[in-house]
Amino acid sequence: MSFIFFENYTEGWGTFFRIKEILCHKESKYQKIEIFESWDHGKVMVIDGAVMFTEKDEFTYHEMIVHVPMFSHPNPERILVIGGGDGGTVREILKHDTVKEVLLVEIDEVVIELAEKYFPQTTCELKNPKTKILVRDGIEFLKECQEAYFDLIIVDSTDPVGPAVGLFESDFYNACYRALKDDGILNVQSGSPYFQKDLIEKVKNTISMIFPIARVYIAGVPMYGGLWSFTIGSKKYDPKMGPVREDYKITSNLKYYNYDIHRGAFALPNYLRKGV
Amino acid sequence: MSFIFFENYTEGWGTFFRIKEILCHKESKYQKIEIFESWDHGKVMVIDGAVMFTEKDEFTYHEMIVHVPMFSHPNPERILVIGGGDGGTVREILKHDTVKEVLLVEIDEVVIELAEKYFPQTTCELKNPKTKILVRDGIEFLKECQEAYFDLIIVDSTDPVGPAVGLFESDFYNACYRALKDDGILNVQSGSPYFQKDLIEKVKNTISMIFPIARVYIAGVPMYGGLWSFTIGSKKYDPKMGPVREDYKITSNLKYYNYDIHRGAFALPNYLRKGV
Repeated sequence: MSFIFFENYTEGWGTFFRIKEILCHKESKYQKIEIFESWDHGKVMVIDGAVMFTEKDEFTYHEMIVHVPMFSHPNPERILVIGGGDGGTVREILKHDTVKEVLLVEIDEVVIELAEKYFPQTTCELKNPKTKILVRDGIEFLKECQEAYFDLIIVDSTDPVGPAVGLFESDFYNACYRALKDDGILNVQSGSPYFQKDLIEKVKNTISMIFPIARVYIAGVPMYGGLWSFTIGSKKYDPKMGPVREDYKITSNLKYYNYDIHRGAFALPNYLRKGV
Repeated sequence: MSFIFFENYTEGWGTFFRIKEILCHKESKYQKIEIFESWDHGKVMVIDGAVMFTEKDEFTYHEMIVHVPMFSHPNPERILVIGGGDGGTVREILKHDTVKEVLLVEIDEVVIELAEKYFPQTTCELKNPKTKILVRDGIEFLKECQEAYFDLIIVDSTDPVGPAVGLFESDFYNACYRALKDDGILNVQSGSPYFQKDLIEKVKNTISMIFPIARVYIAGVPMYGGLWSFTIGSKKYDPKMGPVREDYKITSNLKYYNYDIHRGAFALPNYLRKGV
């Protein structure tokens, strides 16, 4: 028996994985979640046909979505993660001793359950006493949450289809602004510079109408078709200026992020810079 | 009728293209060359089963292999390209007014012939009076070529299989050193940071035993599995310090390269930095 998994990035181009074994396929209230053991990338989580991460390369995405905004803030204590039910983002956040509380608001409890069953590598900090998990729509949560409470909000969502659509709208970013302290930072995964350029432009333009500082940065994520983008809205600190603190106890154990990478990540290709 | 092209990056992971039409498949003395019209990436050239470039995204690779070393040199006049029979590298070099002569030494004339037939986009400067083409083994050529003649040598080769094996050996880099002026620069495509890390380390270590300055830089090339690396050996100028001259007449018309990208490209992920 032999399976191959395909994901199209565009109509005519995409990626494939050889599968050793299909471990799970489950339809939740919101989406279809599949997990397989790949030939040489460890276990892979797929949501609605798109690779969320592989065990082998998840470090790039999770380190880059977390440490760029974390090291752009002098004292990030209270962190909110919207989405990110696989736990990889929480794991990276908790490497910082400054952190007092991480609240993970994930709409789909099935993602958390399956991640806990199959991915100890990413869920290892979900039981940390500093971590709180709320199974709830992030948009609803932010409407009601306390004002000026968080230092950092990370939106670790799927693409803007299904339950994630509202996470790319200005109402949501306004609610994030309200929930952040007056030196708070919002960071949003904003798609592929190569095949979702319109999405990045929309996110950047919307965030720059709300936050005084809006910045796009990129990282090389092989499993997402090469390059990936993140968009930051910041009230006070400019992440493009580089890290505002250094902690080699953290960075010496990372696989991707370092302070040069942080600064270099804000250099955008011409084709992207013209739009954002 | 319907074809799909697959390329494995690792045993269990790779990329695919939907094919509109197979335009050509030809076995030369050295390698198998195939050209197809893809669904949404224009025409694609494949050598020995590996995508060389697509019309849609060749700009990233060609701009990055050329403009980083070109802008690291104050006055690059004589340029040698080893390989690069598709012409894309020559096209980028000739955007610089400093250039007096480009010598393209390509072992396989079939690559040049097919590129001229199918890819006017990349071959457009092969007929430029400043361009000279020599169909010859680059290794043999360098053994006999004039000493201290070139300002820049670019090795735009395939992976180290078949005719390209010798292009990754120290004898060859020594011959390049000899052929370069005393402020000359060598730039070599050195594979994927993600799945050819050993190759990059080997190239970097070999070049750093010959040249006083050795630097690795990276770019996001979706068609090569995400990230790609280049390794520079330099006698005088440190390309990591950034461009030594600026020419907005060139850069304002590029799609990828700009001066921030140049500087940012030398920031390497931890997993790569530890080895090189």
